[in-house]
Amino acid sequence: MADYIEGKRPIIEALRTNVPVKRVLLADNAKRDPLIEDVLRKARRFDVPVETVPRKRLDDLSERGSHQGVMAETIPFGYVNVTAILQAAERSAAENGGRALVVMLDHITDAGNLGAIARSAESVGASGIVIPNKRAARVTAATYKSSAGAISHLPVTQVANLVQSMERFKENGFWIAGASEHAEGSIWESNLQGKIVLVMGNEAEGLSRLVQDGCDFLVKLPQMGEVSSLNVAQASTACMYEWLRQNEVPAASGRRN
Amino acid sequence: MADYIEGKRPIIEALRTNVPVKRVLLADNAKRDPLIEDVLRKARRFDVPVETVPRKRLDDLSERGSHQGVMAETIPFGYVNVTAILQAAERSAAENGGRALVVMLDHITDAGNLGAIARSAESVGASGIVIPNKRAARVTAATYKSSAGAISHLPVTQVANLVQSMERFKENGFWIAGASEHAEGSIWESNLQGKIVLVMGNEAEGLSRLVQDGCDFLVKLPQMGEVSSLNVAQASTACMYEWLRQNEVPAASGRRN
Repeated sequence: MADYIEGKRPIIEALRTNVPVKRVLLADNAKRDPLIEDVLRKARRFDVPVETVPRKRLDDLSERGSHQGVMAETIPFGYVNVTAILQAAERSAAENGGRALVVMLDHITDAGNLGAIARSAESVGASGIVIPNKRAARVTAATYKSSAGAISHLPVTQVANLVQSMERFKENGFWIAGASEHAEGSIWESNLQGKIVLVMGNEAEGLSRLVQDGCDFLVKLPQMGEVSSLNVAQASTACMYEWLRQNEVPAASGRRN
Repeated sequence: MADYIEGKRPIIEALRTNVPVKRVLLADNAKRDPLIEDVLRKARRFDVPVETVPRKRLDDLSERGSHQGVMAETIPFGYVNVTAILQAAERSAAENGGRALVVMLDHITDAGNLGAIARSAESVGASGIVIPNKRAARVTAATYKSSAGAISHLPVTQVANLVQSMERFKENGFWIAGASEHAEGSIWESNLQGKIVLVMGNEAEGLSRLVQDGCDFLVKLPQMGEVSSLNVAQASTACMYEWLRQNEVPAASGRRN
C-alpha cells in the first residue's frame, strides 16, 4: 500500500530531505499560496510529476484530514531480505580484515530514532539493519530526515521473528551482542572483534526477554550521571564506535564474556 | 528578559518535559477547548500559577503571533560562571582518579543538539558545558526536551570568548582536544586521560580557525560510510564515551599527539 504525506510544509520538508516521492496530488481548487508554490517548485526540481485531482480524491486518501489541498505519494522503501545483509556483511568482512557489523533493533518505535541509528551505522561502515515487521518503527519520511540521507545507502530488512534471525546470523559466524543494563561488565571488557550483530532494545523496555536470552553476551555503556539513560540512538552510536575501535585497534581487545 | 512559550501544544509539551515555567498567561476570552483544559490541568499538577489577562496583553508579548490565547513565561536558565565549572571538574577529578571532562561547543546553533549533547555529557559524568554568549544556541524549551531533563543537572556557562576560556582551562591543568576532520590520527590514538576539555564545532562549519589553533591536539572519529558525517550530538557522544573508556580502562591508553 502506498504511503502518503499530507500538507504543504510536510511535503516541502520531505522533498528537501530526499524522501523518494512518486507524485504530488494537487486539489483542483487549491489556492496558489506561497507554500503551494514552493511545493510545485521543489517537485519540478526533483522531477516529481504533479497531478491535479478533485479535492474529494484527497479527502478520501487522507488519513489525518490535514492535506491542505496537497498530498505526496511516496515510493515504498526498498527493504531487502536477510540474505542480502548477510552477503553485504561477508563482503565487508572480506574487505576489512574480518570485521562486519549488523544492527538489530528490538522494536524501536520512533522512526526518527531509526534514522539517527542508520546515520551512525552508515558512518561506521555497518552492513545493514534488521527490524521487526510488526509493532516497530519502519522507514518513513521522519527516518529520511533524521538519517540525513544515510537510510538510502544502508540495507534494511524487516523480519517476522528476531530470534530466528539471530540464529541465522549465528550459523553464519556472527556473535550476538545485546545492549542491556543487565550486562555484567562494561562494553569495553567485551570482545567485539570480527562479525557482530549489535542488538539494541526498545526505547522504554529495552531488550525483550526472548531476544536477550538469544544473545551470546550482553554489553553496557557505563552511566555515570544522576539522571538519565542515554537515548537509544546515542547509545547505539557509542556502541558502534566501540565495535569499530576494537576492530581498528586490535591491541586493545577484551574477552568474549 | 523573560522568555515566553506561545500556543497550546508547545506549552503542554514544555510542562510535560519539565521546562521550568514561572506562570501561564491565559487570555480572558480564551475558549475552553480540550487543549486549553490540558494546559490548565498540567499547570495545576506542576504548581504553576495561571493568570487571566486581556488578550491584548498576549498580543503585545507575542513574538510570533501564535499564542492561541495562552502563553507561558519560563524561568530563565541558571547559567554559572567558568569558575563554578572548574570547581566541579576539580571535585570530579578528586573523586574519580583524576579524570574530569568539560564540553565546549563552538557555536552550535541548534538548541535541540545542545540538549542531546547535555544528555550524553551527564551520562558520562561530565562537569559542565561551555557555550558562547552570542551567535549560538542557548538553553531553550527544545533543550530541555532533547536533554530528557539532564540539562537541569549539568552546569552550563556562557562566555564572551572561547579562546580565552580555553586558556583558563589550560592554566588549570586541562588538555584541550578539538574534534576535527583535520586530525591526523583517530581519537583512539589520542590520549584522553585526566582532565580534558572536548571542543565540538558548529553543525555546518566545524571548529573555527582560532578555536582550532587554541587546541592542544585534534581528534577525529573515523568515518567509514559513503554518505555522511555524524550529527554533532552523535559525534559528541562517541567522543565522550571514548574519554570515559580511556579513564576507566587505563591499560588501553594512547599517546598525547
